[in-house]
Amino acid sequence: MKNIGLSELARRIGEPSISWLMKLTLERPEVISLAAGFTDNESLPVEDTRELLDEILGSKKSGRTALQYGTSMGDPILRELTALHLQFEDTGRSPKRIADAYTPGRMVVTNGSQQLLYLIAEALCDPGDIILLEDPTYFVFLGITALRGVRCRGIRMMPDGIDLEHLERVLDELARSGDLRRIKFLYLVSYFQNPSGVTTRFEKKLAALELLRRYERKAGHPIYLLEDAAYRELRFAGESVPSALAAPGGAERVIYTGTYSKPFASGSRVGFGLMPEELSKTVLRLKGNHDFGTSNLLQQLTARALHSGKYARHVAVLRKRYARKSVVMRDAIREHFPDDVDWSEAEGGLYIWARLPRRMKSGMKSRLFQRALAHDVVYVPGELCYAEDAARPRPNHEMRLSFGGAVETALRQGIERLGKAIHET
Amino acid sequence: MKNIGLSELARRIGEPSISWLMKLTLERPEVISLAAGFTDNESLPVEDTRELLDEILGSKKSGRTALQYGTSMGDPILRELTALHLQFEDTGRSPKRIADAYTPGRMVVTNGSQQLLYLIAEALCDPGDIILLEDPTYFVFLGITALRGVRCRGIRMMPDGIDLEHLERVLDELARSGDLRRIKFLYLVSYFQNPSGVTTRFEKKLAALELLRRYERKAGHPIYLLEDAAYRELRFAGESVPSALAAPGGAERVIYTGTYSKPFASGSRVGFGLMPEELSKTVLRLKGNHDFGTSNLLQQLTARALHSGKYARHVAVLRKRYARKSVVMRDAIREHFPDDVDWSEAEGGLYIWARLPRRMKSGMKSRLFQRALAHDVVYVPGELCYAEDAARPRPNHEMRLSFGGAVETALRQGIERLGKAIHET
Repeated sequence: MKNIGLSELARRIGEPSISWLMKLTLERPEVISLAAGFTDNESLPVEDTRELLDEILGSKKSGRTALQYGTSMGDPILRELTALHLQFEDTGRSPKRIADAYTPGRMVVTNGSQQLLYLIAEALCDPGDIILLEDPTYFVFLGITALRGVRCRGIRMMPDGIDLEHLERVLDELARSGDLRRIKFLYLVSYFQNPSGVTTRFEKKLAALELLRRYERKAGHPIYLLEDAAYRELRFAGESVPSALAAPGGAERVIYTGTYSKPFASGSRVGFGLMPEELSKTVLRLKGNHDFGTSNLLQQLTARALHSGKYARHVAVLRKRYARKSVVMRDAIREHFPDDVDWSEAEGGLYIWARLPRRMKSGMKSRLFQRALAHDVVYVPGELCYAEDAARPRPNHEMRLSFGGAVETALRQGIERLGKAIHET
Repeated sequence: MKNIGLSELARRIGEPSISWLMKLTLERPEVISLAAGFTDNESLPVEDTRELLDEILGSKKSGRTALQYGTSMGDPILRELTALHLQFEDTGRSPKRIADAYTPGRMVVTNGSQQLLYLIAEALCDPGDIILLEDPTYFVFLGITALRGVRCRGIRMMPDGIDLEHLERVLDELARSGDLRRIKFLYLVSYFQNPSGVTTRFEKKLAALELLRRYERKAGHPIYLLEDAAYRELRFAGESVPSALAAPGGAERVIYTGTYSKPFASGSRVGFGLMPEELSKTVLRLKGNHDFGTSNLLQQLTARALHSGKYARHVAVLRKRYARKSVVMRDAIREHFPDDVDWSEAEGGLYIWARLPRRMKSGMKSRLFQRALAHDVVYVPGELCYAEDAARPRPNHEMRLSFGGAVETALRQGIERLGKAIHET
């Protein structure tokens, strides 16, 4: 390629594999996408949003506030409502006062939680630094680590979250190689994980925090726990699990990120992060340089949705809807997939993770993927969800199947087609 | 400070001086701010926005599209309408076909034009690289250069744009010191510049592009012209000036950024950038990692405002309004400022730039600034608008006065108070 003057960072960016998948589904509308992380289209809160915006813009006073610039930190009412909501979710009761870990002064409103992930990586990571993350993990986050030149270490997953013994082994290894001071944080997608669907048990969060603490002295700085709770609101089965913010000392070590995109209006792209105060100052200044603040109009919309109760009612509807769609996908998998494909029922979120027998490859260049394409269906190949990590080969026999975007008939048909492709491989 | 694990980039961020100013005006509502870059509050298009959103969300089809995720690049209709609008502004006639420099495929929609500036600096600049910029320049951009560790060279300003001879001298100097390969672009705020109010003549853009080209061979890569046209739509006097995109070869070297925040609904934060195709691919991937796309709802709102004619009508109203406010400020300056203060009438934008006699300092720590504060009025000290540049001392005798945010009586009173402070200094 000719030299167009790119920075080192820019030269590290590869074309995201997923963009090829997205282009494909746009160009071939007959293809059923079980790959896209889109939210359910039919239940998008069109009427709620219209009413809320009508209220905001129906008065000159609130209308002008919504259409004027805000602050980099975000709307104070939205931050307070979010803090109250989170603390309620974590403790199960309406708080009399907001506890330290949840104070709105430690919160930054962002353009979806994706922006918060970017800001955190930017604030903490130099090229050569190390991030610990789940094996598998959220693949767009892997794009961020790549462009920042960060090294990743994958931690094995169990049905209730990361394998703590493996985490300890990796930490020990890094201590021996003198790399501890390069570790910045452990990244967990803690609820209905993208892509595996796993929810991390609260006790595991506590144990992970304690373990990280033990290695901090040698690291010379905090080793944070970055908890990405993007799917938390989308629970439709099982018990609720508190976030790591509720852990003793959570206020000092946990960076928590959540979003209103997935549980409410995806097109509004409002997310947030809570983090230790010192770090929040840096993130806030970075955000000031990125865009000096998320759209005030969207923040007012979100705040009013929360306050009016429309948000809570919508989430209740959405949970039923995704519960139903997950059952449709589950039943189709039972009917059409061979018995040696391993998968678990979803308790929330948007995904079912299917493991083929190890001999059966699922990657973009695999025969299975080609057969699936020939049958007009696509999925996210598991290999895209694993970090580059010299300590293990990259697994290549899994599939992320999304029941979020497609309608029920498409879900059924998509799984049927995929079943055919598997049988033919 | 104790080590909280920050990256090198994060350790380069200083507290923006302007945040102190903003906090001050929030804490002391009696203070009249001639500092804030806010847009006129009373003319914000509350009713237009309500009607447009009502239309979008009044239909399930368009409502769902607006509330679903979009693409990183941005809404195709918004990009096309923007391309047509720009080409019309540059050529004075409705285009039969879109010329190369304006093609929507080279456009990325961003969260205000601020995000585009950030993405460009990130895509092109490593620490130690060099950016050429106007003396004075947009101070938030200086925040970006600082955190990226970029060196700045200020180019002297004349009433019709940069001093081309000075630009050539600086380029020669950098050629001699072997630093040419570190230069990435020349940054111009080309219309009603923030802070000086200066508009760059088209011929100067042509000459600057030609000059930059001459040094490219030694640089080993393109030296771009980054044209920040944030205030372009806010012209209320004088002749329209084409952008550098209209220059021969502009398509290959010009990065153009514009925004709908200032001329329409500031709280919507929709901006965009047009750039050479190769570079746009990189910026798009970066944007994908930052937030995978600006809110679809806001993009649909903006597209519909453009298409319906509401945007054009609103801009016409806004121009009259700012014309009137600039006259109010001008008349007050004539009445209350001493004769040895130098300033020019605004032809657009939001600012009047006032030069005090050189012996009279205007910085945050100056007696003048303190007297102004005592009289409950603040301005942006000129010194904040100059890059760190070893080749010259940082001028400290100027003030940026904004007529954007304050109402007319506050403008009059603010200038009167400031006049008193100047007389007392």
